[in-house]
Amino acid sequence: MPINQQILLDNRPTGEASASNFMLVSSDTPPLQEGQVLVRHHYLSLDPYMRGRMNDSKSYAAPQPLGQVMIGGTAGEVVESRSPKFQPGDKVVGMGGWQEYSVVNADQPGALRKVDTTHVPLSHYLGAVGMPGVTAWYGLVKIIEPKAGQTMVVSAATGAVGSAFAALSKARGCRTVGIAGGPDKCKYAVDELGFDACIDYKPHADAGSLSKALRDACPDGIDGYFENVGGMVLDAVLSRMNAFGRIALCGMIAGYDGRPMPLAYPALILTNRLKLQGFIVAEHMEVWPEALKELGTLVGTGKLRPRETVAQGIESAPEAFLGLLKGKNFGKQLVKLI
Amino acid sequence: MPINQQILLDNRPTGEASASNFMLVSSDTPPLQEGQVLVRHHYLSLDPYMRGRMNDSKSYAAPQPLGQVMIGGTAGEVVESRSPKFQPGDKVVGMGGWQEYSVVNADQPGALRKVDTTHVPLSHYLGAVGMPGVTAWYGLVKIIEPKAGQTMVVSAATGAVGSAFAALSKARGCRTVGIAGGPDKCKYAVDELGFDACIDYKPHADAGSLSKALRDACPDGIDGYFENVGGMVLDAVLSRMNAFGRIALCGMIAGYDGRPMPLAYPALILTNRLKLQGFIVAEHMEVWPEALKELGTLVGTGKLRPRETVAQGIESAPEAFLGLLKGKNFGKQLVKLI
Repeated sequence: MPINQQILLDNRPTGEASASNFMLVSSDTPPLQEGQVLVRHHYLSLDPYMRGRMNDSKSYAAPQPLGQVMIGGTAGEVVESRSPKFQPGDKVVGMGGWQEYSVVNADQPGALRKVDTTHVPLSHYLGAVGMPGVTAWYGLVKIIEPKAGQTMVVSAATGAVGSAFAALSKARGCRTVGIAGGPDKCKYAVDELGFDACIDYKPHADAGSLSKALRDACPDGIDGYFENVGGMVLDAVLSRMNAFGRIALCGMIAGYDGRPMPLAYPALILTNRLKLQGFIVAEHMEVWPEALKELGTLVGTGKLRPRETVAQGIESAPEAFLGLLKGKNFGKQLVKLI
Repeated sequence: MPINQQILLDNRPTGEASASNFMLVSSDTPPLQEGQVLVRHHYLSLDPYMRGRMNDSKSYAAPQPLGQVMIGGTAGEVVESRSPKFQPGDKVVGMGGWQEYSVVNADQPGALRKVDTTHVPLSHYLGAVGMPGVTAWYGLVKIIEPKAGQTMVVSAATGAVGSAFAALSKARGCRTVGIAGGPDKCKYAVDELGFDACIDYKPHADAGSLSKALRDACPDGIDGYFENVGGMVLDAVLSRMNAFGRIALCGMIAGYDGRPMPLAYPALILTNRLKLQGFIVAEHMEVWPEALKELGTLVGTGKLRPRETVAQGIESAPEAFLGLLKGKNFGKQLVKLI
């Protein structure tokens, strides 16, 4: 019976999240019952949405319960099985949470998905060929509905969602412009991720200044915007949107800490006849097969080469997660557990 | 050659619009050329969008030029014709502007439309069975896409758009709640326009207070919202929207004077997976025939009995327009010119 190290949510943040909100515990993995499998997690995915779950507030999902293992996507290997559906050695992706092992009821639909690691490394199933990739796909394909020659912009450009967005947008013949924090990320976005241009938001003190930089990077205006950040960046992009532009709203990291984050000029939505639409990719499972197929092909053919930031060991998860919220990661943030 | 009194935009407002922005002049109506008709205006329509045109700023339409007749919808009668398409006595609707007569090129598509006043009074073609009615129709049918049993809310409830919205929404089996200024308007909305409830926003000092009133009037939350106002009202409604709610943005009177009018919690668009969409009804001419048919039937059968506030004489137009911007009108604001 292997020992399972777990991270629980111990208490809720007031304002900014901190390491003291979490607690590391150990327990034995329980014996399997009929129909269950034991998965050893190789990778834990860290994602911005987790910050929202730490609050006890009305949102699209129930809050993370206190004293329980933090929610999270995991990729790993079946090490023991009492289900005919899985064999030891199978590579699988699931929602195992912030722990080293999980026991899964194999009959529960969607709880565990076998993946093929021949052409796609296991960890990418938590990023480009997983939830973040499908998030980019849904926002671009289903909400923004890009046309060749149009200009697409994405914030948090070098993150898991942003890098997938770039490959999907370029594949559709669009000028693709990123917004990221710092010259290193911007250089990487252009050199490695295929962005036509990338703007460093950090030197810009306000939306007006960032708006001028956007004008230079998007000489024909902006037709589609994928919003991962909110706040000043959204204000700046709104001021450059073309008539009939579409904005997919997926993340608003800037607001998770409870600070008010108003939108300065909502009248622009009217004057430019814009569409803004929020979405949660887990509510659109019907698109996952089509999206994962395209994303897997882009990774397999080298057109999407996502970068990862990997922390080592379950005990490093809280600090890695807090760093993610501050943009310290570079690409998809993972925790390696083996 | 009748004398034509006209109102020109003399100078642009700085901040609030005032009567001194306009100038009344007189001129002879010019002799008709081949293909032209002379229309005597019976009614001039006053609409909030005109305030936007008075500014010299980037918007969906070009600014109203200085020194020219103010733009505006008109309903009247052909008094002289050099076109085979129109006869003297024809009742017509067009964009004649703030003046008593207009000369129209009858061959210009859409410039002049004959209307039937058998069942629908001429003035209603500027309101319920005209641009404001089609505006309500487009926002409700094409953007909000209501389902029977859902809850719909509209601001400026007793105005030309709001009253048409109520009849269209009730015809689709929706709970329909208005927001208006003052107890008289709210009583009228419920007693005469068919609203299930109407909230007087005036006693509410902030969005939080208005939000509580909305909770009582909309016990099942809000699924669709037609925005005519912006500002505090939009903040309050956003806080009560159900998941997957739709918001049609048509007017933002509260912002026309150039005061910043931020949206306090745009993150709600994400957490509730809302769609916000701005539109200009003049860009969707393809829906007008279908919309006008339904609106004409609602008026003809007495299911939509729009109220009008009628000022007398072209010289009264500026003060009537400024009153409209402050919500002093009760129903569709017109100027009677005969």
